[in-house]
Amino acid sequence: MTSPELAIIGGGQLARMMTPPAIALGIKTRLLAEGDDVSAAQVIPDYVVGSHLVLADLKAAIGEAPVVTFDHEHVPSEHLEALSAAGHACRPGPHALLFAQDKLAMRRRLTELQVPCPRWAQIQSMQDVRDFGFPLVLKTARGGYDGKGVWVIREEAEAVDIIENATVELLAEELVDFSRELSAQVARSASGEVVAYPVVESRQENGVCAEVIAPAPNLDSVRGAEAAAIARSVAERLDVVGMLAVELFETGDGRILVNELAMRPHNTGHWSIDGAVTSQFENHVRAVLDLPLGSTAPVYAWSVMVNILGGTEPDLVARRRVALAAEPDVHIHLYGKEVKPGRKVGHVTASGTDLESVLDRARRSAALVKGEEN
Amino acid sequence: MTSPELAIIGGGQLARMMTPPAIALGIKTRLLAEGDDVSAAQVIPDYVVGSHLVLADLKAAIGEAPVVTFDHEHVPSEHLEALSAAGHACRPGPHALLFAQDKLAMRRRLTELQVPCPRWAQIQSMQDVRDFGFPLVLKTARGGYDGKGVWVIREEAEAVDIIENATVELLAEELVDFSRELSAQVARSASGEVVAYPVVESRQENGVCAEVIAPAPNLDSVRGAEAAAIARSVAERLDVVGMLAVELFETGDGRILVNELAMRPHNTGHWSIDGAVTSQFENHVRAVLDLPLGSTAPVYAWSVMVNILGGTEPDLVARRRVALAAEPDVHIHLYGKEVKPGRKVGHVTASGTDLESVLDRARRSAALVKGEEN
Repeated sequence: MTSPELAIIGGGQLARMMTPPAIALGIKTRLLAEGDDVSAAQVIPDYVVGSHLVLADLKAAIGEAPVVTFDHEHVPSEHLEALSAAGHACRPGPHALLFAQDKLAMRRRLTELQVPCPRWAQIQSMQDVRDFGFPLVLKTARGGYDGKGVWVIREEAEAVDIIENATVELLAEELVDFSRELSAQVARSASGEVVAYPVVESRQENGVCAEVIAPAPNLDSVRGAEAAAIARSVAERLDVVGMLAVELFETGDGRILVNELAMRPHNTGHWSIDGAVTSQFENHVRAVLDLPLGSTAPVYAWSVMVNILGGTEPDLVARRRVALAAEPDVHIHLYGKEVKPGRKVGHVTASGTDLESVLDRARRSAALVKGEEN
Repeated sequence: MTSPELAIIGGGQLARMMTPPAIALGIKTRLLAEGDDVSAAQVIPDYVVGSHLVLADLKAAIGEAPVVTFDHEHVPSEHLEALSAAGHACRPGPHALLFAQDKLAMRRRLTELQVPCPRWAQIQSMQDVRDFGFPLVLKTARGGYDGKGVWVIREEAEAVDIIENATVELLAEELVDFSRELSAQVARSASGEVVAYPVVESRQENGVCAEVIAPAPNLDSVRGAEAAAIARSVAERLDVVGMLAVELFETGDGRILVNELAMRPHNTGHWSIDGAVTSQFENHVRAVLDLPLGSTAPVYAWSVMVNILGGTEPDLVARRRVALAAEPDVHIHLYGKEVKPGRKVGHVTASGTDLESVLDRARRSAALVKGEEN
């Protein structure tokens, strides 16, 4: 087998969804997978099983690949530095990924850059909690995702166990009284080209992205431009290469505040596979290989993405037929993952000109795949 | 590895391009590949190397897969019958594929069905050639493709060697004075659902598809409906399951005549990957697995596909960057095939609202990938 052009670390659904554009563009990829059965190892022939925490495993998977990218942000910085020193271009690089790995570093840096953030402070004691004031959001600086490592604290007693048992740094953030959540995504190539996707609305349930509407309905044009400008500025100032998602709070009083950063294709951009000229996965792959970026224009007035979270129905493949029969024009994406309650196992995207109808079709289709309707 | 849902026979670019929709729909595929390096074996992890002419190889590749489909039409009928007898659903089945394998059988059957064809006759001797009259097109009934096994005969001497050395049956067809070539594609599912793609114009060079315009410009609506009706009728009457392409001649005097049938995704439908709501590859996969079919509606006013045929530039991967820099919104598809002169090694698709501009962008992009421009 010829040498891969691109190594991908981590075998989740994001690596899986990078595969179709890599196939189209003739890009040979090699994967570091957590096991033989993980989502991306099912679809990338050239994979190595190992851990992203073990430098030898990373090296074995990367081989001679000149460029390395990631399914997630959890590769330790020291390993990324070692890989860079060995001549592999890690994209995004460790100096950028730090700000997606460490929320304290992210808050400090964004504050320096005067990017609007919720009020925040590092927390090392119960006194720090009391000084910050209630209510507050307590977060682990590292390791949280999809609502894990995040606690809403309304009174002192709720914080005690978290502070006493903390094994990583903590920070407090203002509990923002937001009217909705937005996401602004850009792709930035290794040589600095930047393209911005339409700003979308993201709806969460239990701390997990449930559905995304592209573009965000009724978004004030000034606020939309501000959101896009924040994403572009963060990508440039932090030297992000690849996709960047900036998750934002929109407040009732007209502010836009940065909630989280993700330096990879992101759940809030899955709509782009079926709804944009160039998907976030294709632009991620193009960006990290320093190829020119494709148009981010939407091809429909509205696209709605609804996540399929694991429920009680284990056989999504059988349910796929039921869902397509009900909504043949909805695009179903299954990740090849074993169904577990609450786990992201797929998504659907519907598109069209009438938002209410598009929302209905996407939600119904997702419910049918999950087995919640017949 | 869990058992595959779908076995694909033949490792060319059509099998390769079935892979992205199979990934999205969570369909596990297994491939019979001609070698480790063929186009589809690069992107389908679960493949077996062997020959489609050897029943044991077919059985080894198919394993327990309930459904079998094809990258080409060259699997011998007796093998297809044996596989069907063993409980595998071959889609399309041998009774349908016969009419894509054997041009004499096709002409006899279409004539029975009163589908408009060029005047034709079986040819067994020079006397038959003289009786048919000059000029004529001489074809081998089996084994021809991309202009091979097809000869335009304008005088008796040109036919002598062909008749004397023929190892397969021959037929003669009227040399149609066509104004252009059209292609009408439909998908038909195992349970009989049919969806039709817009009729497209196909431009050939040296007997090979060079470019396709979707939809066919200036197509008379009655003639377009006739072309689509022919494709639907052929799919139903011949019991085709999967994609069917009916290649047609449009004559200056307003006739539509069937040129060829292909029972698989077809070069004239590659535009649909980037230009239709549901690509021909997704609808082929859905049809053979008897899933409901997706919308065939175009998402742009015009899409133009231009083939990339091998030229003097061996390194398409390096040229990809040059082409994307010039036309970042053109979709490039490379098949992972070694460049040989005249070989189909990829295609590009451009879309938009102004046909001349779309044509220019697609042609320029293909020329850049081929290394014909800088």
